[in-house]
Amino acid sequence: MAERRQQATITEVAAKAGVSVGTASKAVNGRGQLRPETRARVLAAAAELGFEPNALARGLLSGRSYTVGLLTNDSFGRFSMPVMLGAEEALGAGQMSVFLCDSRGDAERERHYIRTLQARRVDGIVVTGRRIEPRPPIDTVVPVVYAMAPSTDPRDVSVTSDEAGGARLAVQHLIDSGRRRIGHVTGPAGHLAARLRASAIQEALSAAGLPSGPDLVHFGQWTEEHGRRAAERLAGTHPDLDAICCGSDQIARGVTDHLRESGRQVPADVAVCGFDNWDVMVFASRPPLTSVDRNLHAVGRRAAQCLLETIAGQPITGPRQLPCTLVVRESSLQPLPDVLGLAADRS
Amino acid sequence: MAERRQQATITEVAAKAGVSVGTASKAVNGRGQLRPETRARVLAAAAELGFEPNALARGLLSGRSYTVGLLTNDSFGRFSMPVMLGAEEALGAGQMSVFLCDSRGDAERERHYIRTLQARRVDGIVVTGRRIEPRPPIDTVVPVVYAMAPSTDPRDVSVTSDEAGGARLAVQHLIDSGRRRIGHVTGPAGHLAARLRASAIQEALSAAGLPSGPDLVHFGQWTEEHGRRAAERLAGTHPDLDAICCGSDQIARGVTDHLRESGRQVPADVAVCGFDNWDVMVFASRPPLTSVDRNLHAVGRRAAQCLLETIAGQPITGPRQLPCTLVVRESSLQPLPDVLGLAADRS
Repeated sequence: MAERRQQATITEVAAKAGVSVGTASKAVNGRGQLRPETRARVLAAAAELGFEPNALARGLLSGRSYTVGLLTNDSFGRFSMPVMLGAEEALGAGQMSVFLCDSRGDAERERHYIRTLQARRVDGIVVTGRRIEPRPPIDTVVPVVYAMAPSTDPRDVSVTSDEAGGARLAVQHLIDSGRRRIGHVTGPAGHLAARLRASAIQEALSAAGLPSGPDLVHFGQWTEEHGRRAAERLAGTHPDLDAICCGSDQIARGVTDHLRESGRQVPADVAVCGFDNWDVMVFASRPPLTSVDRNLHAVGRRAAQCLLETIAGQPITGPRQLPCTLVVRESSLQPLPDVLGLAADRS
Repeated sequence: MAERRQQATITEVAAKAGVSVGTASKAVNGRGQLRPETRARVLAAAAELGFEPNALARGLLSGRSYTVGLLTNDSFGRFSMPVMLGAEEALGAGQMSVFLCDSRGDAERERHYIRTLQARRVDGIVVTGRRIEPRPPIDTVVPVVYAMAPSTDPRDVSVTSDEAGGARLAVQHLIDSGRRRIGHVTGPAGHLAARLRASAIQEALSAAGLPSGPDLVHFGQWTEEHGRRAAERLAGTHPDLDAICCGSDQIARGVTDHLRESGRQVPADVAVCGFDNWDVMVFASRPPLTSVDRNLHAVGRRAAQCLLETIAGQPITGPRQLPCTLVVRESSLQPLPDVLGLAADRS
């Protein structure tokens, strides 16, 4: 550490170029009236010394800091992480730098971070979290965009993924593949994501003239264990079940495990769809899971773009939804037509 | 957005307090000679207007920005995320703010971020990544601490978790529980983490006078599928195997699944240990997995503390290792003594 270099100062640049500090400052900041050869001499000296203009000083001069705050309440990060990285990608590749603030769900810590971000004169703030329940708007004077968890104020700019649309993609795929008795296993009824997806699925089943209703829906936990238990109960109450559309990949994996261990083939006997397209789960399942991708990376990127537009003065307000994508894998493949009449042998 | 408030300026504070801008500035920054009642009047006006001192200006005055860069190359984030959050926790709770920079493993992007951080006059940089292989030091004039992935320069400050020590904890626990034929299934031999853990396990087995050697070690992928296949091969070559110490929780889960599906009881017949203590895997496994926690959150926190000490001028250099922790769950519980002689019935 003793040999650590120092950052070159504007004084050193001025001395090397043989000009005053004021002249050197004008040259590196592109301001003022200077002879072209003087400016060139200063810039050459700056380059040689590795001088970098001071972004703090430039922020004061321009009234903008070219920094943005990224405020999350989700330390665990499986859902907010792709949102954050999408936002960071959209901002950091340009001249914007991103302040990372993790409130860990604590309101006092969130206020501390908002004060800090304002003191640092951020140009705006992206707010994200683990769940999709609307959250109270944050109290700040700078532009804010909400990602994944929208603001309760409908005038605020929010970017979320279309949960209901994603669930419709999955169930419609099952219907189109010829499945006729479709159960749904999902997370807690107290979670908005679970309710939105369940309603969309029931509506699609009704619209297709297929059985729907509470006896085909099992709310519970977002766990494999809930998936295993609910699959067992559904098999008991609906022995003719030929598909299970799940609210998460963890649930779908539990469902798949139970079906396999109780002697039912996936997808030949029962098709299974997950939700989240979480690589760890979809590829480890046997067979690999068809799943709905919420495109959270794109949600973060879009939120950052909305923030940049707002900072640039464009008058955008209100919520925006991005579509989900269905990724089809082996767990929901259509059974081959039974041209040889072999199916009867299996029973 | 039309009703958005503006941040109060020092001019407004001065007008409200009936003093000059210079006097107001001295009061809010705690500088200069002022009568106590003048300072009090200015601070009262500042509080009433919600004025926040400008951190950019303070950074220029003090020569410090009270910002730190957090540079990661791991977009996926399962390993670097806890390190980053630990660092953010140690820094953000105080007056330090954290710039998030994700180079996504791209060297050019990393250089862009280092230039940006220097231009922003960060007080220091924490560098982290996905793997533990030493990486070339970054080229910068500010203090740097490496977390999880150390620098190749032994004088640089690095904080890592003790991988070999963690593996020793797991295998010693199995030995102490009376296991005598212990296999090891782990990730690619090209990964330093896999090699360090495998060597530590083989040394501990030799030291205990137990069988060790290449036929008991299966390098491969960090996947459940590799776990299932390696468990099958080990069962074929070593039918008397009574424990498998795994290089990751995903591998351990695959091992456990294969053992259960081939009719062997975990832990009664074969004990299983994982590595990483990843909640998603250890609790979803049947039975829940004993695992080694690398304490990556603490690694991040410690790295941030080292950086703060370096910024404060303390002369610290070289690598630091934090111990891992063994978390014992059902998968490695000691078999009960067979006082009733029932074990013979199972064979």
